[in-house]
Amino acid sequence: MTNPDGTVAPGALMAAEVAEQPTVLARLIAEGVDEIAAVRAHIEAYRPRFVLIAARGTSDHAALYAKYLAEVGLQLPAGLASPSTLTVYGARPDLSEVLFLAVSQSGGSPDLVGSVEAARACGALTVAVTNNPSSPLAAAAAHHVDIRAGLELAVAATKTYTAELLALYLLLCGGDADAVPDAAARTLAFGPQAYAAAERYRFTQRLVTTARGFSYPTAREAALKVMETSYLSAQAFSGADLLHGPLAMVDPDLPVIAIVTPGAGGAAMAPVVARLAESGANVLLVGPDGGLPVASAGIAEELLPILEILPLQQLAWRLALDRGGDPDRPRGLSKVTETW
Amino acid sequence: MTNPDGTVAPGALMAAEVAEQPTVLARLIAEGVDEIAAVRAHIEAYRPRFVLIAARGTSDHAALYAKYLAEVGLQLPAGLASPSTLTVYGARPDLSEVLFLAVSQSGGSPDLVGSVEAARACGALTVAVTNNPSSPLAAAAAHHVDIRAGLELAVAATKTYTAELLALYLLLCGGDADAVPDAAARTLAFGPQAYAAAERYRFTQRLVTTARGFSYPTAREAALKVMETSYLSAQAFSGADLLHGPLAMVDPDLPVIAIVTPGAGGAAMAPVVARLAESGANVLLVGPDGGLPVASAGIAEELLPILEILPLQQLAWRLALDRGGDPDRPRGLSKVTETW
Repeated sequence: MTNPDGTVAPGALMAAEVAEQPTVLARLIAEGVDEIAAVRAHIEAYRPRFVLIAARGTSDHAALYAKYLAEVGLQLPAGLASPSTLTVYGARPDLSEVLFLAVSQSGGSPDLVGSVEAARACGALTVAVTNNPSSPLAAAAAHHVDIRAGLELAVAATKTYTAELLALYLLLCGGDADAVPDAAARTLAFGPQAYAAAERYRFTQRLVTTARGFSYPTAREAALKVMETSYLSAQAFSGADLLHGPLAMVDPDLPVIAIVTPGAGGAAMAPVVARLAESGANVLLVGPDGGLPVASAGIAEELLPILEILPLQQLAWRLALDRGGDPDRPRGLSKVTETW
Repeated sequence: MTNPDGTVAPGALMAAEVAEQPTVLARLIAEGVDEIAAVRAHIEAYRPRFVLIAARGTSDHAALYAKYLAEVGLQLPAGLASPSTLTVYGARPDLSEVLFLAVSQSGGSPDLVGSVEAARACGALTVAVTNNPSSPLAAAAAHHVDIRAGLELAVAATKTYTAELLALYLLLCGGDADAVPDAAARTLAFGPQAYAAAERYRFTQRLVTTARGFSYPTAREAALKVMETSYLSAQAFSGADLLHGPLAMVDPDLPVIAIVTPGAGGAAMAPVVARLAESGANVLLVGPDGGLPVASAGIAEELLPILEILPLQQLAWRLALDRGGDPDRPRGLSKVTETW
């Protein structure tokens, strides 16, 4: 997609990085598994009683995924850290027996570095998951996991998100994810269906995404992706929370994307999908039986988020181009965001 | 606002409940303080190491407030519980030394009751904060705090939200909140300014709210309030997260409400307000120096959320009426939402 004059076509970077994901995931398994197992052994030896996870932006959705892995997989209570309590308010809690995970593509955000330093000083075992082993965040944490996604050039994060998810799965669950790269390739091959679905949203300013359990981070990340590439007001709700208030605004003019994949989370969406149908909402399903298929056969529920986001990345990319934008360079954003 | 034929004018219930808040807050302090101190003594004797808080809808924003209180006030790590991990996925973590707080107006949502029962069986100290001492949630928890807000009839929660905030402050911080009811009355007296501000949003379909720290729950609750009464796509962002992606969609056509009140959270909003100004956004400030004043003089930062939401409730009420809706009875919602 390089033009004859050397410029790059709009969206070419994001398209290449979306397509690269099966390779990135396979590389992380092939090259990263020993490093991750070593960090995992440190965590097991530490015997944490609680898990806190800190992140911003897209990585915050990987953090939410890690929260479900900690609670369901490790059977540990877990929370998303509010970086501001450590950095803005200077809280210094006793964090002994706490595993403090920080997730960041760049490893460069000062408030994350500050919260890891504070957590370490408070007694936590600190682990950073980043795409940059020489980042300040990697240096601040006791242990580092490199997601090995290669340089990400598009401002909208794609391959670093799925690589973060896989790294967190390997770190916290230690299971076998060998089937995931092929399943990712098979899911991406359904791309034309995602591009066709983008047609429907050409003129909407609003969108709702919803899911439950392990798929809820997918709903959050999909909403951010269309927000930052196509400037939609896209809102993500857990299926349960949607019924507590926000359902009032859902009408036939407000499109809904629901992620309903095999497993307990997808099953818990049944009453939500029924209520959406009653309200006359226009619903696009993501899942093996839905409008946007996911090659989920043989993949454990906790690994499905790595696949579910793929058609939604394709949809966000296509929609941004259809609306005349450049998903590689959303207005007002830079690749590394510094917040304090 | 009762009509001659006995019917109630649209919004009359919500208007009465918004206006009642100084009385409700004063009653909670006068009648509830001993009960709350007794539960607080149980918590202190238990010496928790970690706090988990479970809630849905409006109460979820009170839960987020409690998370900041736990982290900054109690200096304990805290997390928002994902009810689905206990109820949908059947996780059974070791919750000894964990304080498990459940916050609910009705005390009736089955998934909250289920998560309190599961947390109690897993060894947590369970405390329910509700407006109904005879609710299943109050029965399920080891201890109960009654917010004494009186029957709430409007579907959009107002007085139960501020009463939950005050109860949580008294429970977790034990400080003096005696000045709050008067400050609430003085803040509500600025109502005409909130009604005038509602004019600006008569025809928008979208809105962004933003804040940091203790005020972030205010941004979340304000967004939900306009979502459920006026069916806007209203999105709340922590000021830091706004800079990580969502800023791309902010332009002069997307109105922003920023809560900037005295204290560290408001001070941390300075760079966010500056970036919003650069992007040409239309920003309405809530705070002592803003378009929507808050009678914050002499009130500690951690108590300001009880005041900040008041002009935003007034704005949501006025906007719903202006748009031809009935904020007492949003379409598609009932007062008690049952989710599993």
